[in-house]
Amino acid sequence: MTPDLDLKQYLERQRLIVEKSLEAALPENEGPEARVVEAMRYSLFAGGKRLRPILCLAAAEAVGGEIAAAMPAACALEMIHTYSLIHDDLPAMDDDDLRRGKPTSHVVFGEAIAILAGDGLLTEAFVLLSDYHTLLPERALKLIGVIGRAASYRGMVGGQVVDMLSQNKPADLETVQQMHSRKTAALISAAAESGALAGGGTDDQVEALARYGRAIGLAFQIADDILDIEGHTEVLGKTAGSDVARGKVTYPAAVGLEGSREAARKQVDHALAALERFDHKADPLRALASYIITRKK
Amino acid sequence: MTPDLDLKQYLERQRLIVEKSLEAALPENEGPEARVVEAMRYSLFAGGKRLRPILCLAAAEAVGGEIAAAMPAACALEMIHTYSLIHDDLPAMDDDDLRRGKPTSHVVFGEAIAILAGDGLLTEAFVLLSDYHTLLPERALKLIGVIGRAASYRGMVGGQVVDMLSQNKPADLETVQQMHSRKTAALISAAAESGALAGGGTDDQVEALARYGRAIGLAFQIADDILDIEGHTEVLGKTAGSDVARGKVTYPAAVGLEGSREAARKQVDHALAALERFDHKADPLRALASYIITRKK
Repeated sequence: MTPDLDLKQYLERQRLIVEKSLEAALPENEGPEARVVEAMRYSLFAGGKRLRPILCLAAAEAVGGEIAAAMPAACALEMIHTYSLIHDDLPAMDDDDLRRGKPTSHVVFGEAIAILAGDGLLTEAFVLLSDYHTLLPERALKLIGVIGRAASYRGMVGGQVVDMLSQNKPADLETVQQMHSRKTAALISAAAESGALAGGGTDDQVEALARYGRAIGLAFQIADDILDIEGHTEVLGKTAGSDVARGKVTYPAAVGLEGSREAARKQVDHALAALERFDHKADPLRALASYIITRKK
Repeated sequence: MTPDLDLKQYLERQRLIVEKSLEAALPENEGPEARVVEAMRYSLFAGGKRLRPILCLAAAEAVGGEIAAAMPAACALEMIHTYSLIHDDLPAMDDDDLRRGKPTSHVVFGEAIAILAGDGLLTEAFVLLSDYHTLLPERALKLIGVIGRAASYRGMVGGQVVDMLSQNKPADLETVQQMHSRKTAALISAAAESGALAGGGTDDQVEALARYGRAIGLAFQIADDILDIEGHTEVLGKTAGSDVARGKVTYPAAVGLEGSREAARKQVDHALAALERFDHKADPLRALASYIITRKK
Protein backbone atom coordinates (compact mmCIF):
# COMPACT_ATOMS: atom_id res chain seq x y z
CA MET A 1 0.00 0.00 0.00
CA THR A 2 2.16 2.88 -1.22
CA PRO A 3 0.03 5.03 -3.58
CA ASP A 4 -1.49 8.08 -1.94
CA LEU A 5 -5.03 7.18 -2.97
CA ASP A 6 -4.87 3.86 -1.11
CA LEU A 7 -3.89 5.58 2.12
CA LYS A 8 -6.78 8.02 1.77
CA GLN A 9 -9.24 5.15 1.33
CA TYR A 10 -7.64 3.27 4.20
CA LEU A 11 -7.84 6.27 6.53
CA GLU A 12 -11.48 6.89 5.63
CA ARG A 13 -12.45 3.24 6.11
CA GLN A 14 -10.72 3.03 9.49
CA ARG A 15 -12.14 6.38 10.56
CA LEU A 16 -15.69 5.13 9.99
CA ILE A 17 -15.05 2.00 12.04
CA VAL A 18 -13.70 4.16 14.87
CA GLU A 19 -16.69 6.56 14.67
CA LYS A 20 -19.06 3.65 15.15
CA SER A 21 -17.22 2.33 18.19
CA LEU A 22 -16.97 5.77 19.75
CA GLU A 23 -20.70 6.23 19.26
CA ALA A 24 -21.32 2.97 21.12
CA ALA A 25 -18.82 3.89 23.84
CA LEU A 26 -20.47 7.23 24.64
CA PRO A 27 -24.16 7.17 23.70
CA GLU A 28 -26.53 10.06 24.26
CA ASN A 29 -27.82 10.41 27.79
CA GLU A 30 -31.07 11.66 29.27
CA GLY A 31 -30.26 11.68 32.99
CA PRO A 32 -29.45 14.71 35.14
CA GLU A 33 -25.94 14.53 33.66
CA ALA A 34 -27.31 14.93 30.10
CA ARG A 35 -25.72 18.35 29.64
CA VAL A 36 -22.18 17.20 30.34
CA VAL A 37 -22.58 14.10 28.16
CA GLU A 38 -23.82 16.42 25.40
CA ALA A 39 -20.66 18.51 25.81
CA MET A 40 -18.47 15.40 25.86
CA ARG A 41 -20.11 14.20 22.65
CA TYR A 42 -19.94 17.64 21.02
CA SER A 43 -16.15 17.59 21.18
CA LEU A 44 -15.72 13.85 20.65
CA PHE A 45 -17.71 14.02 17.41
CA ALA A 46 -16.35 17.35 16.14
CA GLY A 47 -14.68 15.87 13.09
CA GLY A 48 -11.34 14.66 14.38
CA LYS A 49 -9.06 12.74 12.03
CA ARG A 50 -8.95 9.81 14.52
CA LEU A 51 -5.23 9.51 13.94
CA ARG A 52 -4.46 7.99 17.35
CA PRO A 53 -7.18 5.30 17.16
CA ILE A 54 -6.21 4.46 13.57
CA LEU A 55 -2.56 4.11 14.61
CA CYS A 56 -3.58 1.90 17.50
CA LEU A 57 -5.61 -0.41 15.26
CA ALA A 58 -2.83 -0.47 12.65
CA ALA A 59 -0.30 -1.44 15.32
CA ALA A 60 -2.53 -4.32 16.43
CA GLU A 61 -2.67 -5.54 12.82
CA ALA A 62 1.07 -5.09 12.36
CA VAL A 63 1.71 -7.69 15.09
CA GLY A 64 -0.88 -10.05 13.59
CA GLY A 65 -3.75 -9.19 15.92
CA GLU A 66 -7.39 -8.34 15.27
CA ILE A 67 -8.51 -4.72 15.24
CA ALA A 68 -11.47 -5.63 17.47
CA ALA A 69 -9.03 -6.44 20.28
CA ALA A 70 -7.55 -2.95 20.04
CA MET A 71 -10.82 -1.04 19.74
CA PRO A 72 -11.36 -0.17 23.44
CA ALA A 73 -7.80 1.19 23.58
CA ALA A 74 -8.40 3.10 20.33
CA CYS A 75 -11.56 4.74 21.71
CA ALA A 76 -9.91 5.52 25.05
CA LEU A 77 -7.03 7.24 23.24
CA GLU A 78 -9.43 9.44 21.31
CA MET A 79 -11.32 10.36 24.48
CA ILE A 80 -8.05 11.37 26.15
CA HIS A 81 -6.95 13.34 23.08
CA THR A 82 -10.32 15.13 23.00
CA TYR A 83 -10.24 15.95 26.74
CA SER A 84 -6.79 17.52 26.25
CA LEU A 85 -8.05 19.70 23.39
CA ILE A 86 -11.02 20.94 25.46
CA HIS A 87 -8.81 21.87 28.40
CA ASP A 88 -6.04 23.36 26.21
CA ASP A 89 -8.60 25.62 24.51
CA LEU A 90 -9.91 27.07 27.81
CA PRO A 91 -9.57 30.82 28.44
CA ALA A 92 -7.01 30.15 31.20
CA MET A 93 -4.90 28.13 28.74
CA ASP A 94 -4.73 28.94 25.00
CA ASP A 95 -8.07 30.79 24.95
CA ASP A 96 -9.07 29.38 21.56
CA ASP A 97 -12.54 30.03 20.18
CA LEU A 98 -12.24 27.77 17.16
CA ARG A 99 -11.22 24.14 16.81
CA ARG A 100 -11.64 22.09 13.63
CA GLY A 101 -13.71 24.98 12.26
CA LYS A 102 -16.25 24.80 15.10
CA PRO A 103 -16.67 26.93 18.23
CA THR A 104 -14.76 25.38 21.13
CA SER A 105 -16.48 23.71 24.07
CA HIS A 106 -16.34 26.64 26.49
CA VAL A 107 -17.77 28.96 23.82
CA VAL A 108 -20.77 26.67 23.37
CA PHE A 109 -21.30 25.30 26.88
CA GLY A 110 -19.54 27.78 29.15
CA GLU A 111 -16.31 27.27 31.03
CA ALA A 112 -17.65 25.16 33.90
CA ILE A 113 -19.25 22.54 31.67
CA ALA A 114 -16.21 22.54 29.36
CA ILE A 115 -13.90 21.75 32.28
CA LEU A 116 -16.27 18.99 33.40
CA ALA A 117 -16.62 17.60 29.87
CA GLY A 118 -12.84 17.25 29.75
CA ASP A 119 -12.79 15.61 33.17
CA GLY A 120 -15.60 13.31 32.06
CA LEU A 121 -13.81 12.21 28.88
CA LEU A 122 -10.53 11.57 30.69
CA THR A 123 -12.36 9.46 33.28
CA GLU A 124 -14.43 7.66 30.66
CA ALA A 125 -11.28 6.49 28.90
CA PHE A 126 -10.30 4.53 31.99
CA VAL A 127 -13.82 3.23 32.59
CA LEU A 128 -13.76 1.87 29.06
CA LEU A 129 -10.34 0.26 29.57
CA SER A 130 -11.47 -1.32 32.85
CA ASP A 131 -14.12 -3.19 30.85
CA TYR A 132 -11.50 -4.76 28.58
CA HIS A 133 -12.99 -8.25 28.35
CA THR A 134 -11.29 -9.31 25.11
CA LEU A 135 -7.78 -9.18 26.62
CA LEU A 136 -6.04 -11.12 29.34
CA PRO A 137 -6.54 -9.03 32.50
CA GLU A 138 -2.78 -8.61 33.07
CA ARG A 139 -2.35 -7.28 29.55
CA ALA A 140 -5.30 -4.91 29.99
CA LEU A 141 -3.72 -3.58 33.20
CA LYS A 142 -0.39 -3.06 31.45
CA LEU A 143 -2.17 -1.21 28.66
CA ILE A 144 -3.92 1.06 31.19
CA GLY A 145 -0.48 1.87 32.60
CA VAL A 146 0.92 2.70 29.15
CA ILE A 147 -1.95 5.01 28.26
CA GLY A 148 -2.18 6.46 31.78
CA ARG A 149 1.51 7.36 31.94
CA ALA A 150 1.33 9.01 28.51
CA ALA A 151 -1.57 11.17 29.71
CA SER A 152 0.02 11.94 33.10
CA TYR A 153 2.43 14.64 34.30
CA ARG A 154 5.18 12.52 32.71
CA GLY A 155 3.47 13.06 29.35
CA MET A 156 0.62 15.28 28.19
CA VAL A 157 -0.04 17.17 31.41
CA GLY A 158 3.70 17.88 31.76
CA GLY A 159 3.94 18.96 28.13
CA GLN A 160 1.10 21.44 28.52
CA VAL A 161 2.83 22.87 31.60
CA VAL A 162 6.07 23.36 29.65
CA ASP A 163 3.97 24.98 26.90
CA MET A 164 2.28 27.38 29.35
CA LEU A 165 5.48 28.31 31.20
CA SER A 166 7.65 28.80 28.11
CA GLN A 167 5.44 31.28 26.26
CA ASN A 168 7.12 34.54 25.31
CA LYS A 169 10.51 33.13 26.21
CA PRO A 170 13.37 32.51 23.77
CA ALA A 171 12.72 29.27 21.88
CA ASP A 172 15.61 26.95 22.66
CA LEU A 173 15.59 23.53 21.04
CA GLU A 174 15.68 21.64 24.34
CA THR A 175 12.47 23.27 25.58
CA VAL A 176 10.71 22.63 22.25
CA GLN A 177 11.75 18.99 22.33
CA GLN A 178 10.71 18.55 25.97
CA MET A 179 7.34 20.02 25.14
CA HIS A 180 6.75 18.06 21.93
CA SER A 181 7.86 14.74 23.33
CA ARG A 182 5.44 15.10 26.25
CA LYS A 183 2.55 17.00 24.73
CA THR A 184 2.13 15.11 21.48
CA ALA A 185 4.57 12.24 21.05
CA ALA A 186 3.72 10.60 24.39
CA LEU A 187 0.11 9.78 23.44
CA ILE A 188 0.91 8.91 19.82
CA SER A 189 3.60 6.55 21.06
CA ALA A 190 1.10 5.09 23.55
CA ALA A 191 -1.33 4.59 20.65
CA ALA A 192 1.13 2.40 18.77
CA GLU A 193 2.34 0.65 21.94
CA SER A 194 -1.15 -0.10 23.26
CA GLY A 195 -2.23 -1.37 19.84
CA ALA A 196 0.74 -3.75 19.81
CA LEU A 197 -0.12 -4.89 23.35
CA ALA A 198 -3.78 -5.44 22.47
CA GLY A 199 -2.85 -7.26 19.27
CA GLY A 200 -0.80 -9.76 21.23
CA GLY A 201 2.66 -8.50 20.22
CA THR A 202 5.86 -9.83 21.76
CA ASP A 203 7.89 -7.58 24.08
CA ASP A 204 10.25 -6.78 21.19
CA GLN A 205 7.38 -5.86 18.89
CA VAL A 206 5.71 -3.72 21.53
CA GLU A 207 8.99 -1.89 22.16
CA ALA A 208 9.62 -1.35 18.42
CA LEU A 209 6.14 0.06 17.87
CA ALA A 210 6.46 2.36 20.88
CA ARG A 211 9.68 3.66 19.26
CA TYR A 212 7.88 4.02 15.92
CA GLY A 213 5.07 5.94 17.65
CA ARG A 214 7.45 8.26 19.44
CA ALA A 215 9.23 9.15 16.20
CA ILE A 216 6.06 9.84 14.21
CA GLY A 217 4.66 11.74 17.19
CA LEU A 218 7.62 14.09 17.10
CA ALA A 219 7.38 14.36 13.30
CA PHE A 220 3.67 15.10 13.63
CA GLN A 221 4.22 17.95 16.05
CA ILE A 222 7.04 19.48 14.02
CA ALA A 223 4.78 19.31 10.94
CA ASP A 224 2.05 20.99 13.01
CA ASP A 225 4.38 23.85 13.90
CA ILE A 226 5.28 24.25 10.21
CA LEU A 227 1.60 24.16 9.16
CA ASP A 228 0.83 26.88 11.69
CA ILE A 229 3.17 29.13 9.72
CA GLU A 230 2.48 27.93 6.17
CA GLY A 231 -1.11 26.73 6.36
CA HIS A 232 -4.30 28.63 5.67
CA THR A 233 -6.92 29.19 8.33
CA GLU A 234 -9.75 27.73 6.26
CA VAL A 235 -7.85 24.48 5.64
CA LEU A 236 -6.57 24.13 9.20
CA GLY A 237 -9.92 24.85 10.86
CA LYS A 238 -8.06 26.97 13.38
CA THR A 239 -6.29 30.30 13.11
CA ALA A 240 -3.02 30.02 11.14
CA GLY A 241 -0.10 31.88 12.67
CA SER A 242 -1.62 31.65 16.13
CA ASP A 243 1.49 30.07 17.64
CA VAL A 244 3.63 33.02 16.64
CA ALA A 245 0.99 35.54 17.73
CA ARG A 246 0.96 33.91 21.16
CA GLY A 247 4.71 33.81 21.60
CA LYS A 248 4.67 30.01 21.60
CA VAL A 249 7.90 28.09 21.60
CA THR A 250 7.90 26.19 18.27
CA TYR A 251 10.31 24.12 16.24
CA PRO A 252 10.63 26.69 13.44
CA ALA A 253 11.30 29.42 16.04
CA ALA A 254 14.14 27.31 17.44
CA VAL A 255 15.79 25.94 14.27
CA GLY A 256 14.09 27.70 11.33
CA LEU A 257 11.73 26.28 8.70
CA GLU A 258 14.32 24.30 6.75
CA GLY A 259 15.82 22.90 9.94
CA SER A 260 12.33 21.87 11.04
CA ARG A 261 11.59 20.09 7.76
CA GLU A 262 14.89 18.26 8.07
CA ALA A 263 14.13 17.26 11.68
CA ALA A 264 10.69 15.94 10.69
CA ARG A 265 12.17 13.88 7.85
CA LYS A 266 14.73 12.43 10.25
CA GLN A 267 11.99 11.32 12.64
CA VAL A 268 10.11 9.66 9.77
CA ASP A 269 13.31 7.77 8.93
CA HIS A 270 13.59 6.65 12.59
CA ALA A 271 9.98 5.53 12.43
CA LEU A 272 10.52 3.48 9.26
CA ALA A 273 13.68 1.96 10.75
CA ALA A 274 11.68 0.80 13.79
CA LEU A 275 9.42 -1.14 11.40
CA GLU A 276 12.26 -2.95 9.65
CA ARG A 277 11.57 -6.38 11.11
CA PHE A 278 7.83 -6.21 10.38
CA ASP A 279 6.24 -7.72 7.27
CA HIS A 280 3.61 -6.30 4.90
CA LYS A 281 1.08 -6.13 7.73
CA ALA A 282 2.94 -3.01 8.87
CA ASP A 283 2.47 -1.29 5.50
CA PRO A 284 -0.31 1.01 6.77
CA LEU A 285 2.05 2.15 9.54
CA ARG A 286 4.73 2.83 6.92
CA ALA A 287 2.30 4.85 4.80
CA LEU A 288 1.09 6.75 7.88
CA ALA A 289 4.65 7.78 8.74
CA SER A 290 5.10 9.50 5.40
CA TYR A 291 1.59 10.96 5.40
CA ILE A 292 2.24 12.71 8.69
CA ILE A 293 4.74 15.17 7.23
CA THR A 294 2.98 15.71 3.91
CA ARG A 295 -0.56 16.38 5.20
CA LYS A 296 -2.06 19.82 4.72
CA LYS A 297 -4.02 19.99 7.98
CA MET B 1 -14.30 0.35 69.65
CA THR B 2 -17.17 2.56 70.73
CA PRO B 3 -15.70 5.36 72.91
CA ASP B 4 -15.10 8.58 71.05
CA LEU B 5 -11.44 8.76 72.12
CA ASP B 6 -10.66 5.39 70.47
CA LEU B 7 -12.06 6.55 67.12
CA LYS B 8 -9.94 9.70 67.27
CA GLN B 9 -6.82 7.63 67.88
CA TYR B 10 -7.81 5.21 65.15
CA LEU B 11 -8.40 7.99 62.63
CA GLU B 12 -5.09 9.64 63.47
CA ARG B 13 -3.17 6.35 63.21
CA GLN B 14 -4.73 5.48 59.86
CA ARG B 15 -4.28 9.01 58.58
CA LEU B 16 -0.53 8.80 59.20
CA ILE B 17 -0.28 5.48 57.34
CA VAL B 18 -2.14 7.00 54.39
CA GLU B 19 0.08 10.15 54.42
CA LYS B 20 3.16 7.97 54.09
CA SER B 21 1.77 6.00 51.15
CA LEU B 22 0.59 9.15 49.38
CA GLU B 23 4.06 10.64 49.80
CA ALA B 24 5.55 7.55 48.17
CA ALA B 25 2.91 7.58 45.41
CA LEU B 26 3.60 11.20 44.39
CA PRO B 27 7.17 12.19 45.29
CA GLU B 28 8.68 15.59 44.52
CA ASN B 29 9.85 16.04 40.97
CA GLU B 30 12.65 18.03 39.40
CA GLY B 31 11.88 17.59 35.68
CA PRO B 32 10.30 20.15 33.35
CA GLU B 33 6.97 19.12 34.88
CA ALA B 34 8.15 20.11 38.39
CA ARG B 35 5.68 22.99 38.64
CA VAL B 36 2.59 20.89 38.07
CA VAL B 37 3.79 18.16 40.41
CA GLU B 38 4.35 20.88 43.02
CA ALA B 39 0.74 22.01 42.51
CA MET B 40 -0.53 18.42 42.67
CA ARG B 41 1.36 17.92 45.95
CA TYR B 42 0.24 21.28 47.34
CA SER B 43 -3.39 20.19 47.23
CA LEU B 44 -2.79 16.52 48.00
CA PHE B 45 -0.95 17.43 51.21
CA ALA B 46 -3.15 20.33 52.28
CA GLY B 47 -4.38 18.66 55.45
CA GLY B 48 -7.26 16.50 54.26
CA LYS B 49 -8.96 14.18 56.74
CA ARG B 50 -8.25 11.18 54.44
CA LEU B 51 -11.78 9.92 55.06
CA ARG B 52 -12.07 8.03 51.76
CA PRO B 53 -8.73 6.18 52.09
CA ILE B 54 -9.45 5.36 55.74
CA LEU B 55 -12.86 3.97 54.76
CA CYS B 56 -11.27 1.93 52.00
CA LEU B 57 -8.69 0.40 54.38
CA ALA B 58 -11.37 -0.25 57.00
CA ALA B 59 -13.53 -2.03 54.43
CA ALA B 60 -10.59 -4.26 53.48
CA GLU B 61 -10.14 -5.16 57.16
CA ALA B 62 -13.87 -5.72 57.62
CA VAL B 63 -13.76 -8.56 55.08
CA GLY B 64 -10.64 -10.04 56.69
CA GLY B 65 -8.09 -8.57 54.27
CA GLU B 66 -4.84 -6.71 54.85
CA ILE B 67 -4.73 -2.94 54.64
CA ALA B 68 -1.62 -3.16 52.42
CA ALA B 69 -3.73 -4.77 49.70
CA ALA B 70 -6.11 -1.81 49.74
CA MET B 71 -3.48 0.93 49.88
CA PRO B 72 -3.17 1.68 46.13
CA ALA B 73 -6.96 2.01 45.95
CA ALA B 74 -6.94 4.21 49.05
CA CYS B 75 -4.32 6.56 47.55
CA ALA B 76 -6.09 6.66 44.18
CA LEU B 77 -9.35 7.64 45.90
CA GLU B 78 -7.65 10.53 47.69
CA MET B 79 -6.06 11.72 44.44
CA ILE B 80 -9.46 11.70 42.74
CA HIS B 81 -11.08 13.49 45.69
CA THR B 82 -8.32 16.13 45.61
CA TYR B 83 -8.60 16.67 41.85
CA SER B 84 -12.34 17.26 42.25
CA LEU B 85 -11.74 19.88 44.96
CA ILE B 86 -9.20 21.74 42.79
CA HIS B 87 -11.56 21.86 39.81
CA ASP B 88 -14.64 22.68 41.94
CA ASP B 89 -12.79 25.64 43.47
CA LEU B 90 -11.91 27.19 40.07
CA PRO B 91 -13.23 30.66 39.21
CA ALA B 92 -15.52 29.14 36.52
CA MET B 93 -17.02 26.78 39.13
CA ASP B 94 -17.41 27.75 42.81
CA ASP B 95 -14.69 30.44 42.70
CA ASP B 96 -13.37 29.58 46.17
CA ASP B 97 -10.22 31.24 47.49
CA LEU B 98 -9.94 29.18 50.64
CA ARG B 99 -9.92 25.43 51.25
CA ARG B 100 -9.01 23.77 54.54
CA GLY B 101 -7.79 27.19 55.70
CA LYS B 102 -5.29 27.53 52.86
CA PRO B 103 -5.41 29.49 49.57
CA THR B 104 -6.82 27.29 46.80
CA SER B 105 -4.69 25.97 43.95
CA HIS B 106 -5.60 28.60 41.36
CA VAL B 107 -4.88 31.39 43.86
CA VAL B 108 -1.37 30.03 44.43
CA PHE B 109 -0.47 28.62 41.00
CA GLY B 110 -2.81 30.40 38.60
CA GLU B 111 -5.78 28.91 36.79
CA ALA B 112 -3.88 27.07 34.04
CA ILE B 113 -1.65 25.13 36.42
CA ALA B 114 -4.61 24.46 38.74
CA ILE B 115 -6.59 22.88 35.91
CA LEU B 116 -3.55 20.80 34.94
CA ALA B 117 -2.86 19.79 38.56
CA GLY B 118 -6.41 18.43 38.73
CA ASP B 119 -5.99 16.63 35.41
CA GLY B 120 -2.68 15.24 36.64
CA LEU B 121 -4.13 13.91 39.90
CA LEU B 122 -7.10 12.28 38.16
CA THR B 123 -4.74 10.59 35.69
CA GLU B 124 -2.28 9.58 38.41
CA ALA B 125 -5.02 7.72 40.27
CA PHE B 126 -5.41 5.37 37.31
CA VAL B 127 -1.65 5.05 36.76
CA LEU B 128 -1.37 3.95 40.39
CA LEU B 129 -4.22 1.45 40.00
CA SER B 130 -2.68 0.02 36.82
CA ASP B 131 0.38 -0.92 38.90
CA TYR B 132 -1.74 -3.01 41.29
CA HIS B 133 0.64 -5.95 41.72
CA THR B 134 -0.74 -7.23 45.03
CA LEU B 135 -4.15 -8.14 43.56
CA LEU B 136 -5.26 -10.64 40.96
CA PRO B 137 -5.35 -8.69 37.66
CA GLU B 138 -9.07 -9.36 37.13
CA ARG B 139 -9.86 -7.97 40.57
CA ALA B 140 -7.67 -4.93 39.95
CA LEU B 141 -9.53 -4.27 36.69
CA LYS B 142 -12.89 -4.58 38.44
CA LEU B 143 -11.70 -2.14 41.08
CA ILE B 144 -10.61 0.36 38.40
CA GLY B 145 -14.13 0.13 36.97
CA VAL B 146 -15.73 0.75 40.38
CA ILE B 147 -13.60 3.81 41.10
CA GLY B 148 -13.74 5.04 37.49
CA ARG B 149 -17.53 4.88 37.30
CA ALA B 150 -17.84 6.73 40.62
CA ALA B 151 -15.62 9.52 39.25
CA SER B 152 -17.33 9.62 35.84
CA TYR B 153 -20.36 11.47 34.50
CA ARG B 154 -22.44 8.79 36.23
CA GLY B 155 -20.98 9.99 39.53
CA MET B 156 -18.85 12.96 40.54
CA VAL B 157 -18.70 14.77 37.19
CA GLY B 158 -22.48 14.40 36.82
CA GLY B 159 -23.04 15.62 40.40
CA GLN B 160 -20.97 18.74 39.81
CA VAL B 161 -22.98 19.46 36.67
CA VAL B 162 -26.25 19.18 38.61
CA ASP B 163 -24.69 21.47 41.24
CA MET B 164 -23.71 24.09 38.63
CA LEU B 165 -27.00 24.00 36.75
CA SER B 166 -29.26 24.07 39.83
CA GLN B 167 -27.80 27.17 41.49
CA ASN B 168 -30.29 29.91 42.27
CA LYS B 169 -33.16 27.59 41.50
CA PRO B 170 -35.78 26.39 44.02
CA ALA B 171 -34.30 23.55 46.09
CA ASP B 172 -36.46 20.50 45.47
CA LEU B 173 -35.53 17.32 47.30
CA GLU B 174 -35.07 15.27 44.13
CA THR B 175 -32.40 17.62 42.75
CA VAL B 176 -30.59 17.69 46.10
CA GLN B 177 -30.60 13.90 46.26
CA GLN B 178 -29.45 13.52 42.65
CA MET B 179 -26.60 15.91 43.35
CA HIS B 180 -25.54 14.38 46.67
CA SER B 181 -25.68 10.82 45.48
CA ARG B 182 -23.44 11.63 42.54
CA LYS B 183 -21.18 14.33 43.89
CA THR B 184 -20.29 12.83 47.26
CA ALA B 185 -21.87 9.45 47.89
CA ALA B 186 -20.59 7.88 44.66
CA LEU B 187 -16.89 8.13 45.61
CA ILE B 188 -17.46 7.31 49.29
CA SER B 189 -19.40 4.23 48.22
CA ALA B 190 -16.57 3.35 45.81
CA ALA B 191 -14.13 3.70 48.71
CA ALA B 192 -15.93 1.06 50.75
CA GLU B 193 -16.58 -1.16 47.71
CA SER B 194 -13.01 -1.02 46.41
CA GLY B 195 -11.65 -1.73 49.89
CA ALA B 196 -13.86 -4.79 50.10
CA LEU B 197 -12.70 -5.90 46.64
CA ALA B 198 -9.03 -5.38 47.50
CA GLY B 199 -9.46 -7.17 50.82
CA GLY B 200 -10.75 -10.25 49.04
CA GLY B 201 -14.42 -9.92 50.01
CA THR B 202 -17.14 -12.16 48.59
CA ASP B 203 -19.67 -10.68 46.14
CA ASP B 204 -22.19 -10.38 49.00
CA GLN B 205 -19.70 -8.57 51.21
CA VAL B 206 -18.65 -6.23 48.42
CA GLU B 207 -22.29 -5.40 47.71
CA ALA B 208 -23.08 -4.82 51.41
CA LEU B 209 -20.11 -2.50 51.84
CA ALA B 210 -21.02 -0.56 48.69
CA ARG B 211 -24.48 -0.08 50.25
CA TYR B 212 -22.87 0.98 53.55
CA GLY B 213 -20.67 3.47 51.69
CA ARG B 214 -23.57 4.94 49.78
CA ALA B 215 -25.54 5.51 52.98
CA ILE B 216 -22.70 7.16 54.88
CA GLY B 217 -21.83 9.17 51.77
CA LEU B 218 -25.32 10.64 51.75
CA ALA B 219 -25.19 11.20 55.53
CA PHE B 220 -21.82 12.89 55.11
CA GLN B 221 -23.11 15.34 52.52
CA ILE B 222 -26.25 16.17 54.48
CA ALA B 223 -24.05 16.80 57.55
CA ASP B 224 -21.86 19.03 55.37
CA ASP B 225 -24.87 21.09 54.31
CA ILE B 226 -25.88 21.46 57.98
CA LEU B 227 -22.33 22.44 58.99
CA ASP B 228 -22.30 25.08 56.28
CA ILE B 229 -25.18 26.75 58.14
CA GLU B 230 -24.22 26.02 61.74
CA GLY B 231 -20.43 25.83 61.60
CA HIS B 232 -17.90 28.57 62.19
CA THR B 233 -15.50 29.66 59.47
CA GLU B 234 -12.39 29.17 61.61
CA VAL B 235 -13.34 25.57 62.45
CA LEU B 236 -14.45 24.66 58.92
CA GLY B 237 -11.39 26.16 57.19
CA LYS B 238 -13.76 27.50 54.55
CA THR B 239 -16.37 30.22 54.62
CA ALA B 240 -19.45 29.20 56.63
CA GLY B 241 -22.74 30.09 54.99
CA SER B 242 -21.17 30.05 51.55
CA ASP B 243 -23.72 27.59 50.15
CA VAL B 244 -26.59 29.94 50.99
CA ALA B 245 -24.71 32.98 49.71
CA ARG B 246 -24.21 31.20 46.38
CA GLY B 247 -27.80 30.09 45.99
CA LYS B 248 -26.74 26.44 46.23
CA VAL B 249 -29.34 23.75 46.39
CA THR B 250 -28.86 22.12 49.82
CA TYR B 251 -30.64 19.59 52.01
CA PRO B 252 -31.66 22.17 54.66
CA ALA B 253 -33.00 24.44 51.89
CA ALA B 254 -35.18 21.57 50.66
CA VAL B 255 -36.41 20.00 53.92
CA GLY B 256 -35.27 22.34 56.74
CA LEU B 257 -32.63 21.79 59.42
CA GLU B 258 -34.59 19.27 61.52
CA GLY B 259 -35.64 17.34 58.43
CA SER B 260 -32.01 17.22 57.35
CA ARG B 261 -30.82 15.91 60.73
CA GLU B 262 -33.51 13.23 60.58
CA ALA B 263 -32.48 12.26 57.01
CA ALA B 264 -28.81 11.98 58.05
CA ARG B 265 -29.71 9.79 61.04
CA LYS B 266 -31.77 7.55 58.77
CA GLN B 267 -28.82 7.07 56.42
CA VAL B 268 -26.57 6.17 59.36
CA ASP B 269 -29.16 3.54 60.34
CA HIS B 270 -29.10 2.16 56.78
CA ALA B 271 -25.31 2.06 56.95
CA LEU B 272 -25.31 0.15 60.24
CA ALA B 273 -27.93 -2.26 58.89
CA ALA B 274 -25.67 -3.03 55.91
CA LEU B 275 -22.98 -4.10 58.39
CA GLU B 276 -25.25 -6.52 60.29
CA ARG B 277 -23.64 -9.71 59.02
CA PHE B 278 -20.09 -8.48 59.72
CA ASP B 279 -18.17 -9.31 62.93
CA HIS B 280 -16.05 -7.07 65.17
CA LYS B 281 -13.62 -6.41 62.31
CA ALA B 282 -16.26 -3.99 60.99
CA ASP B 283 -16.29 -2.00 64.25
CA PRO B 284 -14.23 0.87 62.80
CA LEU B 285 -16.80 1.16 59.99
CA ARG B 286 -19.59 1.25 62.60
CA ALA B 287 -17.82 3.98 64.56
CA LEU B 288 -17.14 5.95 61.36
CA ALA B 289 -20.83 5.91 60.45
CA SER B 290 -21.76 7.65 63.71
CA TYR B 291 -18.77 10.01 63.59
CA ILE B 292 -19.84 11.31 60.21
CA ILE B 293 -22.93 13.08 61.53
CA THR B 294 -21.40 14.28 64.80
CA ARG B 295 -18.17 15.79 63.42
CA LYS B 296 -17.67 19.56 63.69
CA LYS B 297 -15.77 20.05 60.41
